[in-house]
Amino acid sequence: MSDYTPPVRDMAFVLDTIVGIDSITALPAYDHVDPEIVEGLLDEAGRFFGEVFAPTNRVGDEVGATFADGAVTTPDAFKPVWNKLRESGWTAVTGSPEFGGHGFPKAIGASISEMMTAANIAFSLAPMLTGSAISLLQSHGSDEQRDRYLEKLVSCEWTGTMVLTEPEAGSDVGALRTKAVPNDDGTWSISGTKIFITWGDHDLADNIIHLVLARTPGAPAGTKGISMFIVPKYLVNDDGSIGERNSVETVSIEHKLGIHGSPTCVLSFNDATGYLVGEENRGMRYMFTMMNQARLEVGLEGLAIADRAYQRAAAFAKVRRQGTSPGSDEPSAIIDHADVRRMLMTMKAYTEAMRALIYDAMASEDRKAHAISEAEREAASDRMALLTPIAKAWCTDRGVEVASIGIQVHGGMGFIEETGAAQYYRDARIMPIYEGTNGIQAIDLVMRKLPMGDGAVVADFLDEIGSLDAELAANPDLADIRVALSEALSVVRKTTDFINALESPSDRMAGATPYLEMFGTLCGGYYLARQAVVAHKGADDDPWMAAKVATARFYATNLLDKVHGLAGAATSGDSLLYAIDDDLMGASR
Amino acid sequence: MSDYTPPVRDMAFVLDTIVGIDSITALPAYDHVDPEIVEGLLDEAGRFFGEVFAPTNRVGDEVGATFADGAVTTPDAFKPVWNKLRESGWTAVTGSPEFGGHGFPKAIGASISEMMTAANIAFSLAPMLTGSAISLLQSHGSDEQRDRYLEKLVSCEWTGTMVLTEPEAGSDVGALRTKAVPNDDGTWSISGTKIFITWGDHDLADNIIHLVLARTPGAPAGTKGISMFIVPKYLVNDDGSIGERNSVETVSIEHKLGIHGSPTCVLSFNDATGYLVGEENRGMRYMFTMMNQARLEVGLEGLAIADRAYQRAAAFAKVRRQGTSPGSDEPSAIIDHADVRRMLMTMKAYTEAMRALIYDAMASEDRKAHAISEAEREAASDRMALLTPIAKAWCTDRGVEVASIGIQVHGGMGFIEETGAAQYYRDARIMPIYEGTNGIQAIDLVMRKLPMGDGAVVADFLDEIGSLDAELAANPDLADIRVALSEALSVVRKTTDFINALESPSDRMAGATPYLEMFGTLCGGYYLARQAVVAHKGADDDPWMAAKVATARFYATNLLDKVHGLAGAATSGDSLLYAIDDDLMGASR
Repeated sequence: MSDYTPPVRDMAFVLDTIVGIDSITALPAYDHVDPEIVEGLLDEAGRFFGEVFAPTNRVGDEVGATFADGAVTTPDAFKPVWNKLRESGWTAVTGSPEFGGHGFPKAIGASISEMMTAANIAFSLAPMLTGSAISLLQSHGSDEQRDRYLEKLVSCEWTGTMVLTEPEAGSDVGALRTKAVPNDDGTWSISGTKIFITWGDHDLADNIIHLVLARTPGAPAGTKGISMFIVPKYLVNDDGSIGERNSVETVSIEHKLGIHGSPTCVLSFNDATGYLVGEENRGMRYMFTMMNQARLEVGLEGLAIADRAYQRAAAFAKVRRQGTSPGSDEPSAIIDHADVRRMLMTMKAYTEAMRALIYDAMASEDRKAHAISEAEREAASDRMALLTPIAKAWCTDRGVEVASIGIQVHGGMGFIEETGAAQYYRDARIMPIYEGTNGIQAIDLVMRKLPMGDGAVVADFLDEIGSLDAELAANPDLADIRVALSEALSVVRKTTDFINALESPSDRMAGATPYLEMFGTLCGGYYLARQAVVAHKGADDDPWMAAKVATARFYATNLLDKVHGLAGAATSGDSLLYAIDDDLMGASR
Repeated sequence: MSDYTPPVRDMAFVLDTIVGIDSITALPAYDHVDPEIVEGLLDEAGRFFGEVFAPTNRVGDEVGATFADGAVTTPDAFKPVWNKLRESGWTAVTGSPEFGGHGFPKAIGASISEMMTAANIAFSLAPMLTGSAISLLQSHGSDEQRDRYLEKLVSCEWTGTMVLTEPEAGSDVGALRTKAVPNDDGTWSISGTKIFITWGDHDLADNIIHLVLARTPGAPAGTKGISMFIVPKYLVNDDGSIGERNSVETVSIEHKLGIHGSPTCVLSFNDATGYLVGEENRGMRYMFTMMNQARLEVGLEGLAIADRAYQRAAAFAKVRRQGTSPGSDEPSAIIDHADVRRMLMTMKAYTEAMRALIYDAMASEDRKAHAISEAEREAASDRMALLTPIAKAWCTDRGVEVASIGIQVHGGMGFIEETGAAQYYRDARIMPIYEGTNGIQAIDLVMRKLPMGDGAVVADFLDEIGSLDAELAANPDLADIRVALSEALSVVRKTTDFINALESPSDRMAGATPYLEMFGTLCGGYYLARQAVVAHKGADDDPWMAAKVATARFYATNLLDKVHGLAGAATSGDSLLYAIDDDLMGASR
């Protein structure tokens, strides 16, 4: 039995209210998409991921991926579900029709991704990474490469990987040392050891297409000397059939805190045959084209794990009876206790806030690619650039927080693995780390995103938040949202101005993480307020809409205040960070 | 090799500066304690726990306690270390000399407990629970019971347990159903199933003395009808030798998220022979006499795990090189990056703040028991009562937070179990749950502790914080601490007044958790500020003292602000918590 029900109504509401999905499907690029079918699509996907995919989550954790004799074995339960997933076509929803995809907008893809991720985060990483490989090849591969690989990747007959990290090159990708030496036939020989390769080996697909970063002879140091190569696990013959095994060896898999169902591999390339993607030394640039997308996908993981943790905690709180709440004589379901209710409301509010933020950011990708005017495309590109680090870091930090609250709601049962809440807490913990640590996201925000357009991009976004004030003012029932949002906006504006005026990069970076948290917290309040403005109109007749308003009000009065507790840290500069010598940090007698 | 070095200097500094250990050892009850030996004692204990006890931590996690054929087996590595621990006498430091203990103050015991807990939290629970059993028997056992059990417990030849929880009686202890029926010989027959019994069975000691809560025939409902019984695993003959096996069966142990080295048992009592402690129906009262102590011990666990996580993260950050920090050409140790440094400073500041809070609260226990005047004893009792829920909840929440930051400092390596940081994150997660969930602590604070003395107890404590202002004002270098502390105090005072004026218990409870977090955050700033006032005097000549001042300033300018982000939630009342019907909480399509 599954314990995850995709929240189809909320997804559709966000697509409608926040994303403006009609305005996206109306774009010429989406002529083939019938806006009428969106809700039906979500329903159908919801059934698949809730009923077929989600039940693999526990076994994926308990059994996990295993390694023996140089090969990875996935849990038995994964195999039939993988085949059903491929047949269902859900992984190809946003894929290009040219290569067998359905060509739906990314905004709709966001809902499908959320369902798949919440259903089984570890398993979902296989199609997620494959999607990144597809993006890269579609943008930068040659026609021949696209023809050879894309259809098989879009259908998930093969899967893809991103092969970047080495033992000494993690956050600092530029330090990588894997070598690529040209062969006479135009191919390259790739040699080096790579670590942390998600789904780097497995037994679900006939082939695995690795996209490997390596250095060619004489390449410049750092990120400017990195090239990208296609290195298939099995070479692919000209007719598309599988050829001989390439010399890519799976050395081991990691023993991890969570996402046990996802094999995290050490791969050794020993003169493996590779094919250059695009031009030499442009590998990092190519990576950046899919980096925003991948970071948004990881931000979405924070949302997804939060929703699953929330659903489980609420279900438990409705049936578990302990103590009596004020005014009651009978043992109460713990959901009746104010403090438990606070935990559940916090989980709910963060989850719904994240959903809107992530979907909106992902919709920017659609507009960036397909909006009609250049100005619209540029604005969408800027919006996506600004929101990406916030969506990635804020949502994954909230994912960990909400998963932790989920354990707390369960009391002692939450600490027992069989209950399941602990798995979310373990699984969630990788999200603030991979695809650029949250510290790197925060630095990206203050160092690269705030300065965009000389500060105009962030100012425009804050003005957009400010412009909601008139609509909130029109509804006295939304007065507390209006006050809280306006106060929070004011402190974020002041802090933004302060940071933009800082001359020392080190001072900017010193406050980056608390600044990002402030900004994310404000975004959450904003996106929920926008939903409340719409929901308020139907709240009298529809408890679901009234709940939406109450959730936004709870966030505004209970969570949005946190911005006031972060401004000091965001602006305090670096002097106290470096006041203590290294030898007085950490262990000392 | 160990990766934990007990921070003996900071412990001694806190005992000196915050606790005023000299004023405690000067009490007549501690005539036998030579204040001169305290530092030497800490050094010696530090070596034992750092070098002998701490190396068992990983194996305790990896191997864990196992269950087969009705019995629990501890990891092989535990056995010789347990014997060394017993021989060392460190578990008997605060024990009564009458029963073989050393009769040291609890404040000094706090340091020893911290070392033992940081070294191996799972293992430390065996002596910790034994300590609770000792407290109970010492206060409420008959002379005969004390003679029969205490010496063996103080020496840890036997261990003790607290046997409260049942499947339907967790937070709501009063719902328990285990029965005690009187026998003709004055003993009782105990029957029922108990769960979550920490160290409920194991192979380290010759006997286990269970203190079991049960109902006698005709007992009143709820907590007023609960009696306490001694139920030994093996009956004890009149000459003190081990007799026949009692009918207490170990049914299973739990498969937990963390503290794998600590067997969490399901115990089945089938007409087991029990001995009534004190009077019938007073079991819960007896429990309360050691509840504060046990809660402080759990708060101390938060401190201990935080320190260990901090030490490990700092050690990693000093050797791991990634990227270049501003102004550098070479790859930098990541400790040089501002954002990593922020994480480490946060870990350090919270850890040192917690140490002072916990030691101070534990010292109140010494003064409560042994201060010369009745007024001093009462004041100490009130202080301990007020600080207990804060120390328990705030420190265990910080323990989880700091352990989570510790993973983040490690980047991808933090997610790999072999690194060790993940274990702290898993182990820490039980602390906000057991010994009264943190929600229950928060309710205790707002419902029982704030009203103490008609609000005078909390007002006095806040005045004490306010009285530091003069000393801070005398040192211009402490100006930022002064400002931040005064602003934080002001908002906590206002919030406290607001909550004290609330008539609805539900409104009070609705804001209990954010209120407790505010209060704890303020306490952290206060205790660090007090340390800074002292350390400032030596800061010119001693980098350690200068670091202490910098840590307090960092806390004041970067963490203390959080109180401003919590006031709204603490005072927002219950209406929005109950605005949404249960059926719209959690899973919905």
